[in-house]
Amino acid sequence: MKRDQLGNQQCSVARSSAVLGDPWTLTLLSDCFLGVRRFEEFQERLKVSRTTLTSRLKLLEEHGILVQSQYEQKPPRFEYRLTQKGKELFPVISTLLTWGDKYYSDQAGPPILRRHKKCGHDFQTYIACSECGEPLELKDVEARKRPHNDSYPAVERGPM
Amino acid sequence: MKRDQLGNQQCSVARSSAVLGDPWTLTLLSDCFLGVRRFEEFQERLKVSRTTLTSRLKLLEEHGILVQSQYEQKPPRFEYRLTQKGKELFPVISTLLTWGDKYYSDQAGPPILRRHKKCGHDFQTYIACSECGEPLELKDVEARKRPHNDSYPAVERGPM
Repeated sequence: MKRDQLGNQQCSVARSSAVLGDPWTLTLLSDCFLGVRRFEEFQERLKVSRTTLTSRLKLLEEHGILVQSQYEQKPPRFEYRLTQKGKELFPVISTLLTWGDKYYSDQAGPPILRRHKKCGHDFQTYIACSECGEPLELKDVEARKRPHNDSYPAVERGPM
Repeated sequence: MKRDQLGNQQCSVARSSAVLGDPWTLTLLSDCFLGVRRFEEFQERLKVSRTTLTSRLKLLEEHGILVQSQYEQKPPRFEYRLTQKGKELFPVISTLLTWGDKYYSDQAGPPILRRHKKCGHDFQTYIACSECGEPLELKDVEARKRPHNDSYPAVERGPM
């Protein structure tokens, strides 16, 4: 199966991964959440070729994750902003940051600190259940196929 | 900058993405959380070449995310299991699934349903603050560089 066929798979992670499963794309999105918006700034931070950056931005635009917005009339200049769909990637990037902070920080600690304005503390994230609000632990989660979903491969032992 | 240099960047997302930023890797990890453990089963589900699958499994082993474990003596057969570090990717895969379920499901709904055994309901995930337990919203989060962290690019407008 080729990468572009992955988006047709019967799996939400496979479909999302066909768009997001790229190191530049994930890092670029993380920069978006830090307020970066302009092509030159992305390029400077990612130290990546214009071609690579252009292709990643284009894909994110095509999927409605980023949208171009004009910030100057003469000459016309554009910046990239997260759409609502893009903003909803905040939990994904945020949990990735929490994991990366734990396993890939230098001795001096995480390069970026995040503060929760509501409580005033620097934080990490955890995930909770939409129904009861309790923290979600892998051992408490059970996965099953949607009924009448014959095209999805069997999930026999699925904990998640 | 090349992909393998991304891991040296001063950014936890960049470092994590150097390992995880690949569509097969993310989908494979999602399968691990569904209980898949054996090479042939991964290959059948991902419909990917042995070479591609072998390289992804090897990288995950090198990073201590998966570990091989022998399940048969004669002939010797191995399966792949998530390590503690691997299991801690549960929030990342879980939030990615929540986002994918919302934006890439078929009309019939998400292909996989997840039940929280503690409360008995099918759920989606949200992220919460490690310090106060409140749901984390993008607008309430403020990012700053760690003090004395001169090699990280400036974060000027960072909301996250």
